[in-house]
Amino acid sequence: MSSNFYSTQDYAPSAPPLPSISTSTVVGGALQSFPGGAGSYPTAPLVAAGSYAPPSHDLAAHSFHVSGFFPPGTHPEIVRSFQTVDRDQNGFIDEYELQIALSSGYQKFRMRTIGLLMFLFGNPKNPSNIGPVEFAALWNCIGLWRAIFERFDRDRSGAIDSSELSNALLSLGYAIPPSVIQVIMSKYSDANGGRGSLDFDSFVECGVLVKGLTEKFKEKDACYTGHATISYDDFMLMVIPFLVP
Amino acid sequence: MSSNFYSTQDYAPSAPPLPSISTSTVVGGALQSFPGGAGSYPTAPLVAAGSYAPPSHDLAAHSFHVSGFFPPGTHPEIVRSFQTVDRDQNGFIDEYELQIALSSGYQKFRMRTIGLLMFLFGNPKNPSNIGPVEFAALWNCIGLWRAIFERFDRDRSGAIDSSELSNALLSLGYAIPPSVIQVIMSKYSDANGGRGSLDFDSFVECGVLVKGLTEKFKEKDACYTGHATISYDDFMLMVIPFLVP
Repeated sequence: MSSNFYSTQDYAPSAPPLPSISTSTVVGGALQSFPGGAGSYPTAPLVAAGSYAPPSHDLAAHSFHVSGFFPPGTHPEIVRSFQTVDRDQNGFIDEYELQIALSSGYQKFRMRTIGLLMFLFGNPKNPSNIGPVEFAALWNCIGLWRAIFERFDRDRSGAIDSSELSNALLSLGYAIPPSVIQVIMSKYSDANGGRGSLDFDSFVECGVLVKGLTEKFKEKDACYTGHATISYDDFMLMVIPFLVP
Repeated sequence: MSSNFYSTQDYAPSAPPLPSISTSTVVGGALQSFPGGAGSYPTAPLVAAGSYAPPSHDLAAHSFHVSGFFPPGTHPEIVRSFQTVDRDQNGFIDEYELQIALSSGYQKFRMRTIGLLMFLFGNPKNPSNIGPVEFAALWNCIGLWRAIFERFDRDRSGAIDSSELSNALLSLGYAIPPSVIQVIMSKYSDANGGRGSLDFDSFVECGVLVKGLTEKFKEKDACYTGHATISYDDFMLMVIPFLVP
């Protein structure tokens, strides 16, 4: 079982778009069990441990790019999506190009979601652009989230309710308190016309926030106790980037 | 010197709009000194301690409202602004009505800013509406922030730069680390067309976030040490409500 849920997940060579991966395959190998239940954020796997399928060599795109390489095994569609929008071939794309690139495989995400994806997956030293490695990780992560979203959107309505959101996040490894789920739903429900549900765009935004904030918290909780002692300065630095537009 | 900066500030009977209050008057009495410098968020006053002027009785609006009272000394314009938009006179206004009400005294704020103001000043049990007491507190707080903003916007350009933002927040009692200021500026700068500056709308949004997050942190740091031990669940619950989709 992996000891690093996040990096395993991020660079998983899932097949885009709409990967035909079962939840057990995708999630099982990524989640780690959490001794003692002292904290709740990395949860025990909901499903039997599985593993990522090794990259299919006939699909592997060992593509060279001007300013970087795609990881071995990157699906050709990911490479193609990136190269299509990177018109000046400088090896980086900005947020508007990212929005277009993701539209080819998924949907046109709102700019706020795109901005959060850029922040979560981008290079802190170059926050306004992302390269091939980050793009592949981002694409695969959205593929995973879509598989989870569709698993819980049983009636194929394109939206999930609060208990489905809770279970979907649990499948991704995040045990979010009911009070937080309630807050998330009330915020996004308003944005979605008060329907009391989350569409996929909102789910991705929510996933980015939960993943990002959890990673920030983990940095302060190296021993996985579920508690962290944080200075005021660090607290502000941890959360402000997720909250400003 | 007050031992409760925040409640003193919130209910200060400043004269709206564009209060003719000097920074020393507004801020001096509200800020508290912080022993030992163990933490940085409540700062020592930048200016000589002053005090709020007592409410002018000829301006006092002891207005009865259907579902609540305005605090004694509330400026008539605040009462008028509220009552003008509260057309059904049920004593509560929603976020759209709040936007209109604030337009009469300040400007038309973006709905994102309005949403954050509603969250910060509203009643948690009735988050989609605010009543007279909350409205008066909100109005006065914006009056204080505008006075501070204008103090630092020396060239009257309607915008402040990063060092002015840092000093403005310091004047409000928040010593924000330079790294956080940098993040805020880079985000809002993008939103403002890359001008590297913050307009008043963004400043209010930023002020709401800083004020709200600081209050949340203080709840976990009752002894003002500048550090807090926080559980993962509490951390998420502290931060997620500030998200505005």
